[in-house]
This record gives sequence, structure tokens and C-alpha cells, in this order.
Amino acid sequence: MSSFVQYAPISRVVVFGGTHGNEMSGVTLAKHWLKDSSEIQRQTFTAESCIANPQAVKNCVRFLDQDLNRCFSKEILSSPGSEGDPYEVKRAREINEQYGPGVSSYGFAFDLHNTTSNMGATLLRCSKDDLFSLHLANYLQSNTGNQSMPCYNFLIDIPVEDNAYLQHITKHALCLELGPQPQGVIRLDMLSRMRELVNQALDFIDLFNQGKEFPSFETDIYKFVSRVDFPRDSTGEISAIIHAELQDKDYVPLKPGDPIFKTLNGKDLYYEGERILYPTFINEAAYYEKKVAFILTEKVKWKVPALKVQQ
Amino acid sequence: MSSFVQYAPISRVVVFGGTHGNEMSGVTLAKHWLKDSSEIQRQTFTAESCIANPQAVKNCVRFLDQDLNRCFSKEILSSPGSEGDPYEVKRAREINEQYGPGVSSYGFAFDLHNTTSNMGATLLRCSKDDLFSLHLANYLQSNTGNQSMPCYNFLIDIPVEDNAYLQHITKHALCLELGPQPQGVIRLDMLSRMRELVNQALDFIDLFNQGKEFPSFETDIYKFVSRVDFPRDSTGEISAIIHAELQDKDYVPLKPGDPIFKTLNGKDLYYEGERILYPTFINEAAYYEKKVAFILTEKVKWKVPALKVQQ
Repeated sequence: MSSFVQYAPISRVVVFGGTHGNEMSGVTLAKHWLKDSSEIQRQTFTAESCIANPQAVKNCVRFLDQDLNRCFSKEILSSPGSEGDPYEVKRAREINEQYGPGVSSYGFAFDLHNTTSNMGATLLRCSKDDLFSLHLANYLQSNTGNQSMPCYNFLIDIPVEDNAYLQHITKHALCLELGPQPQGVIRLDMLSRMRELVNQALDFIDLFNQGKEFPSFETDIYKFVSRVDFPRDSTGEISAIIHAELQDKDYVPLKPGDPIFKTLNGKDLYYEGERILYPTFINEAAYYEKKVAFILTEKVKWKVPALKVQQ
Repeated sequence: MSSFVQYAPISRVVVFGGTHGNEMSGVTLAKHWLKDSSEIQRQTFTAESCIANPQAVKNCVRFLDQDLNRCFSKEILSSPGSEGDPYEVKRAREINEQYGPGVSSYGFAFDLHNTTSNMGATLLRCSKDDLFSLHLANYLQSNTGNQSMPCYNFLIDIPVEDNAYLQHITKHALCLELGPQPQGVIRLDMLSRMRELVNQALDFIDLFNQGKEFPSFETDIYKFVSRVDFPRDSTGEISAIIHAELQDKDYVPLKPGDPIFKTLNGKDLYYEGERILYPTFINEAAYYEKKVAFILTEKVKWKVPALKVQQ
């Protein structure tokens, strides 16, 4: 039995939409499930949905004062708070009180996002230690119905004490990034795909709770390496834009010497790294203000041990 | 000679970008041409670019207080203005003073926009009487280099006294809508296409000024018929979204009985009109707040008389 990773059964699940208020697949689904949650219930657990940033949703913007998905730091969550705190800081504390580890027992959280990048279904995780969500991702990847839109494992390995993402307040979690979709737009193809993925993931949790054993497997992980900013002029203004040969090529190997930017004067700029990496979040609208043109990842193979529920 | 429409030569041209601050092709090109305008000069006229809504550009939003492109009404432009006016109202007066009919002699204005809809290059006009811009559009449509992205003539026929669009402050004007492109994103393919179209249009104006005669022709015009809102529940919330069979089908004939929306419960809703119309601005992000899911147009054939410069 020692070859199995074991976790406690999951009795409550929460599905967050609208962590960023203009990422419309999750906003629309979370609103729908707030009215009628029957679709997301399963035999072995109860589920509910939550609009994480209702004011941002109302205004159809990413956030009001600051990015909610960077507000779940130890510092913010453990401090008492005051009237003058930014809206998202207050909201992070509310969410943590309702769904975090203190009082309740939410064993799993989905955090539903969209990206303007051509990233298909990206399963983003901030902890290398949560093997449960890796099994869940493998379950989604193995489902032949998902062949039309590949699922990628994306890992930003953040020490737990530095993790300010929403997804780290529950024991297990997965952030689902679906794209491409413009901000503020509800595309039926994206919404349907997100809905299928959430439902399949809920099926997985149900099977896990019921005692199904999931064998070990090997998988590809795209692991965060570095952010790449746009070239800028002396005033800080962007002076070159994503090259046509890089645009929409998320997860396609980027080789030393490949073009990555083009200036407005027509000059090509090249990738000067020394090894093949895998670009992601290429031309994501929300990352212009973060000074990120794309994010480089390395592709690593992981062996994931077998999983079953703790009896 | 009576068979020719004749207009005075055009000595000054202005290219507006950033009328909506998150439509990035025009924003990026206008900024570039502000630094170096040599590309947009021609033998027979001078040209300059202008960021129409600098504060919206700075914040990468459509507008601050209200839509600038609905602020050029007779009422606004003729009233004295006060300190407490919305930012865009003040800005409209400034633009009108600088480029409008009062003082200067700008004969032609481009207004550069992007849309999240799959509308290719849409040449949007608000006056059926400006035959100059129809000739210009025909010149762009006839250019074989533009075959990869069709150019459409879109007409919202607004009586001049009700016209609040930027484009009506100069004698001749064309609003160029290019899509699909998400808000806040600079795609090189869209930017390059917009740049080519502007340059070809400037060539046309130059040829016109030099005395070239442009023969009469017949053309298709997509003429505004009506706006269609999303279905909504009793609280005003959107209850059905653009159908997958309508998404991205701008300018494709919509027939009575075709599906146009799908509810979150999976029910199809159908187009109940009595004649074939042509949908445009399908799922445009900025139109959600205007309660517009798409705009219906009718396709009409126009005979446009020959054109030459007034000597």
C-alpha cells in the first residue's frame, strides 16, 4: 500500500468564477450555477459556485484596485484589515474566511479564468506538491473527448509562504485558463469547453471519493522559467510587438534565433536564449501592465505515483 | 463633365488612433506616426496623426466618462462647456477646434478602430452623401493585395444634425474597423493590415489630388437596419449567448429560422425576422454595455458616379 499517495476524501467543492471580472466563461458559468447548482453536485460531495470579485464582474474589468489573484498572501490574510484597505484585499479576506482552511472544509477549489493567448486548456498550479490535482489533470488529458483542445500542465512553483494566488487557500485546487478569448466576450465554444472540463473534473473527484485507484503515470509539465517584457524605448513605451511567427504559438518550442518581436520600423528581434523553451501567455492582454509579453517555460517529465483515497 | 462628382482637393489629412483607448492597432500606429510622420506624407498633402483619447489610451480602457465617439453632437460642440463636463465631452470640443470645420482645413480624417468581431476590414461611414469615401473604399477593395481580408462598406445613415461620431467633423472621413482583435492586445497581423490600408488610402487621396479620374462603379453597401440585444431574464441579466453557428459569421446571410442564441440550459433560439439580413459586430466586447449582441444590416447595391478633383 506504500506505493499509493493517499489523501482524505473531499466533501465540499467550490468553483470560483470572476476572480478577474472580465474573463467571461467562468463569470457566466459561476452565475449560472449560483442560480441552479444541480449540474455540479455529485453523490459523494456538495459543490457550490462563487463570484470571487463581484465588483469587478459588475464593471466588467479585471479588478478595481489591484489583482485579486495576488491578494491571498500570508501577510494580507493574517492581518486584521482596516476600512481603507483596497477592495480586493478586503475581498480576499472574506473569501479566505468562507472557503479557507480556518473554519470550513472545502477540499477542492476550481478557479476559472480566460486568457487572450492561444493556450487551449491550461491547468495552472502553484504547488508542485499537490499530486491530487496532477491526477485530476491526467484524467482530463486522458479523456478522448478533450482531444480537440489539448490540456497542458502549467506549474509556477511558489513556496507556500509566498503564494498569493486564490488557489492556495484550499488543500487541493486547480486554476483553469482557457483561451483564446477576448476580455469581456462570452464565446460559446470556450464556455462549453470549460463546462465540460469542470464536469469531468467533478466526476474525477467523485470517483476518487468512491475509492477508485488511479495508477501511476508519466506526464509533461510546463514549468515557469522567466517572464519576457516587450522591448521599450527610453520613455518606457513599447517599441516592438509580438512577431507574427510567435503569435498564437503557445507551447510550441522556441529555439535560439527564432524571431520573437518586430519593431514598428520592420526590424526582427530574435530569441537569444541558449536552449529550447516553451512560450506561454503570448500577448495576454492583462499582462501588458505587468510588463510581460510572454512567459517562458521548460518542459519536464514527471513520474506521478498512484493515488487513492485515505480510508 | 456633368457626369463627374467633383470635390475640392485635399490639402490636410488627420489619422486618429485611440478614439477608443483599448483598440490597439490604431493606438500603436498613431503613436508611431506622432514620432515620425514621414510614412503618411504624400506629394499633394500633409498628414498628421492624433491620439483622440489620450487618457483612455493611458489607462487602456475604451473611455473614462463616456464614449468619445458619441460626443461630437451639434449640441455638445456648439455649447460653451464648463469645468464639470465629462472628460470626453471636453476632449471632443478640443478635437473639433483643432481639426473641425471652424478654423483649419482638414479635408479628410481616418478614425482607426478595432473590433472583437470577425469583421475583416470594415469601412464604416455615417453619411450616405460622401461619395469620396465610397470611391476610396472601392480603391481599397479593388487592390488585389487586400484579397486575404475582405473590405466591407458599412453605412449607418445618420442625419447630419444627429451625427455624434468623430468622423463627421471633417468634410470627408472613413472609420476603419479591423477585427477580430481582443481589446488591449496588439496583433501584428491586424496592425500590418491596418497600416497597409491607411497607406493605400493615402495613395488614393494623392492620386485624386493629382487629377486622376475615377470611373463610376457599382458596389455593395451593408446598411444598418437594427440592433439585437441578448435575451435577458427578469433581472436584466443575459440569459442566452451568441450561438456557435452565428459566432464569427459577420456578413454571412442570416436566414429566418437560423439559430442565433443558446441558453445556458441548452435551448436554441432562432432568428424570427422575415427576410435575409447580414449580421455584423457579432459579440463585440464593447457592445455588451450598450445591450447589443449584434447589428443587422441589409445588403444594397449602389451605383456610384465617377469622381474627379475640382479644378
